Amino acid sequence: MAVGVINSSEVHNVAGVKLAAVKSGIRYTDRLDLVLIELAKDANVAGVFTQNIFCAAPVSIAKSHLRKASPRYFIINTGNANAGTGKTGKEDALNSCRFVAEIGKIPTHQVLPFSTGVIGEKLPIEKIEAVLPKAFSLLEESSWREASLGILTTDTRPKLVSKKIRLRDDWVVITGMAKGSGMIKPNMATMLSYVFTDAIIDEDVLNQILNQVVNKSFNRITIDGDTSTNDACILTATGASKVAISDLNEEDTLRFYGTLESVFRQLAIELIKDAEGATKFITIQVDQGLNKSECLEVAYCIAESPLVKTALFASDPNWGRILAAIGRAEIKNLDLSTIEISIGDIKIISKGEVDDLYTEELVQPLMEKDEITISINLGRGDCNEVVWTSDLSHDYIRINADYRT
Amino acid sequence: MAVGVINSSEVHNVAGVKLAAVKSGIRYTDRLDLVLIELAKDANVAGVFTQNIFCAAPVSIAKSHLRKASPRYFIINTGNANAGTGKTGKEDALNSCRFVAEIGKIPTHQVLPFSTGVIGEKLPIEKIEAVLPKAFSLLEESSWREASLGILTTDTRPKLVSKKIRLRDDWVVITGMAKGSGMIKPNMATMLSYVFTDAIIDEDVLNQILNQVVNKSFNRITIDGDTSTNDACILTATGASKVAISDLNEEDTLRFYGTLESVFRQLAIELIKDAEGATKFITIQVDQGLNKSECLEVAYCIAESPLVKTALFASDPNWGRILAAIGRAEIKNLDLSTIEISIGDIKIISKGEVDDLYTEELVQPLMEKDEITISINLGRGDCNEVVWTSDLSHDYIRINADYRT
Repeated sequence: MAVGVINSSEVHNVAGVKLAAVKSGIRYTDRLDLVLIELAKDANVAGVFTQNIFCAAPVSIAKSHLRKASPRYFIINTGNANAGTGKTGKEDALNSCRFVAEIGKIPTHQVLPFSTGVIGEKLPIEKIEAVLPKAFSLLEESSWREASLGILTTDTRPKLVSKKIRLRDDWVVITGMAKGSGMIKPNMATMLSYVFTDAIIDEDVLNQILNQVVNKSFNRITIDGDTSTNDACILTATGASKVAISDLNEEDTLRFYGTLESVFRQLAIELIKDAEGATKFITIQVDQGLNKSECLEVAYCIAESPLVKTALFASDPNWGRILAAIGRAEIKNLDLSTIEISIGDIKIISKGEVDDLYTEELVQPLMEKDEITISINLGRGDCNEVVWTSDLSHDYIRINADYRT
Repeated sequence: MAVGVINSSEVHNVAGVKLAAVKSGIRYTDRLDLVLIELAKDANVAGVFTQNIFCAAPVSIAKSHLRKASPRYFIINTGNANAGTGKTGKEDALNSCRFVAEIGKIPTHQVLPFSTGVIGEKLPIEKIEAVLPKAFSLLEESSWREASLGILTTDTRPKLVSKKIRLRDDWVVITGMAKGSGMIKPNMATMLSYVFTDAIIDEDVLNQILNQVVNKSFNRITIDGDTSTNDACILTATGASKVAISDLNEEDTLRFYGTLESVFRQLAIELIKDAEGATKFITIQVDQGLNKSECLEVAYCIAESPLVKTALFASDPNWGRILAAIGRAEIKNLDLSTIEISIGDIKIISKGEVDDLYTEELVQPLMEKDEITISINLGRGDCNEVVWTSDLSHDYIRINADYRT
C-alpha cells in the first residue's frame, strides 16, 4: 500500500553525474538491484550516516573513504545489508569498491559502498563482480528512473525529486532519490538517499548544508521508531554548472538553500507516503513549545504510539490516544491547562479540556482522508517542530512478519 | 489470543476483604463491569498511580482521598476511563464515591474510585448509582473470580494470583488481581491491580514495599510502550491475621516479601501473556551492564521494536533486528566487541560478531515456542534487568483499529 499517487514530474539530469542500474540476482531474480553512480572529477561529496552503533560494514568503509578523498563512484546494492557480518563483511564491502576501482581506473578509496536489505547474511560479492562490467557500459546521464528503482527493497515505488532554478544567468539543477519504508527513524540520516546538484560548493559548506537540511527533512520522519544499521544520506555537488554558491548574493543563496531543502523534504515525505503498509500520511505539528527538543519529544510520542497509529488506520477520531501519548512525553512541568489539540482545522482540546464546540461528527470526515494533520499547541514558548509519519496497518504486520520468507 | 492456559490455581480469601461484581451496562450489556470492594476498618492501603500528566479524574480523586484517610471501599468500573473529561469527570468520580459512602455510612473520602475503558467520554454515573445497592447486597469474602472478571476490558481472561504462607504459627494470605492488555508500559503502576494481604503492616512500610515490588513486576513489562491515563496499583493489608510483619525475624520477613513479590510478578506476567493479540511471551534478560538504567534502555529498545515484535510473531530468528534495536539504545560508549546475544541457550552473537557455532537451524525450534527468552550480555558491568513483553500480531491491529466501533 502507499498514500497518494506516484510523483512523476520531469527529472533533470545533473551534469557530472552518470548512473546505471543492473540485475545482479543478490536476493531477487529479475529485479534491478545494483546501482553504479559515476561522478565528475571535481565533484564534492558530503555524507551523514546512521548513528546505530551496529553500523553496517559498507557504512564504516564509506565513512573512512569519504575522509580520505573526493569519491568518483557510488556502488549500491539492495537485498543484503552486509550488516552484522563482522570482518568478512568489511572485506566484502572493500572488495566491491576494489572491483569498481579496477574498471574505473581510480584508487579504491574513491569508491563509496552502500548496502540495504536483510541484516546478518554474507554479501554475495561474486554476483556484484560479475555484473559490474555491464553496469559500467550502461552509465548514462539520464538513467535516473532506473537508478531510483534499483535502490528499492520493500518500497512499492521509487522516490525521485528534481528541481531546476535560475540563479543569476544560469540554471542550477538539484535531483535526488531515496529509498526506505520500514526500520525508519533516521538519526542524522535516512535509509539511503542521494541528492546531486551541478552547483559549485566547497566541501566544508556542503557538509554544513547537508546537516542543516537533513534536520528539516529525513530527521523529522518516523515509521516505526526503528533506526537502521545502514542509513546514509549523500549530497553531491559536481560543480559542472558555472554557478558557485559562494558567489551568489544573499537572496539567490537563500533561494538555492530553499530549493535544496524542498528536494530533501519532498523525498522524506515520499518515504513516509510509501511506508510499509501505509494507508495515511500524517503530519504532526507541535507549536509554542519552550524549545525544539520538547516539541520533538511530544511529536514523536504521538508519531510512534501504536495506539494512535492504529486509530489513524481505522479513521477513528480517538483523540484520547493522542492525549495519552502527549501525557507520557518526558517534559518537565508541562501544564495541561495551556494545551490545545486539533485535527485539521477542528479544535478538539482547549485549555486541557474538550472544546465546547467539538463534536465527533465535525472531525470524522477529516479522519477518512488519506492525509491528516494533528496539531498540538503547548502554549508555553515560541518554538515549533513538525514530524511526518504513517499509520499502522495489517499490511505493516504482514510485510514484516513475512519479510525473510 | 493469549499465550498459555488460564491460571486456575486455588484462590484464598483474605480476611477483612469482601468483593462484589455486577452488570451496570456502562458500555457493554450483560457483562460484569462494576466491582465493589469493602475493606475492614483497620486496613492499611498503599497506592501507586500513572505518571501520565493527563491522568484520569478517578486517579486524581483516588490520590487525594488516599492522602486523607484509610479507605474502606474501592469502586471500579470498566468500559469508560473517565479521562480527558475535565471538571465534569472529577464531579462524576466524586459522586460515585458519594453514592458508595451513603450506603456504606462512611465519609466520601474513604472511597477510592477507579475507571478503565474508552478515554474522553462522560461517565454514565446514573448507571453506577442504580446498581450500587445490588453490589452491596452481593459483597462476599469469596467473590474473587467475579471481581477479577468485572475489571476486564479487552483482556481475554482474568488475572488472579493467590498464595498462602506459614509465618511463625499462623497463615498469611496474599491474593491479587489485575487487568490490562493494551496501552501498557506502566510507569510506577500498571493498568489496574489490587493485591490484598491479611498481614499487619504499617502504612509507611506498606508504601515502601509497594514501590519495591512494582519495580520488579509491573514496571518491567511493556506491550506497546503506551502509558495509560488510568494506571493504578493498590496494595492493601487488612491486618485481620495475627501476623505483624514488623515482629517477624529476618528469614520470615524475607519469605513474606519474596511471596508478595512473586504474586506481583505473576500478575504482571499474566498481563503480558494476555496482551492484545499476543501469540508469544517474551523475556528479555540484559546482563553485565554498568548500571540498571542502561540495562533497561537496551531491554526496552528490543521490547518495543515493532520489527523485533513482528519477527517474533512470525517465529523468524531475524536476529539482525535485535542487533539493530540494541544499536540504537541511548548508551554512551557501548562497545560492540563485548556484546553477546542469545535466544534461549543458543548463542548468536559473541564479541559483537556471529558466533562460530551458530546456525539458523539451531535456533528455529526455539522460535516456534510460545515462550522465548532473548538474552543480552553487555560485558561491561555487574548490573542486570529483566523486561517482559509480547509479540506484535495481526490481532493487535484488529483489536486496536476496531476498539471503539
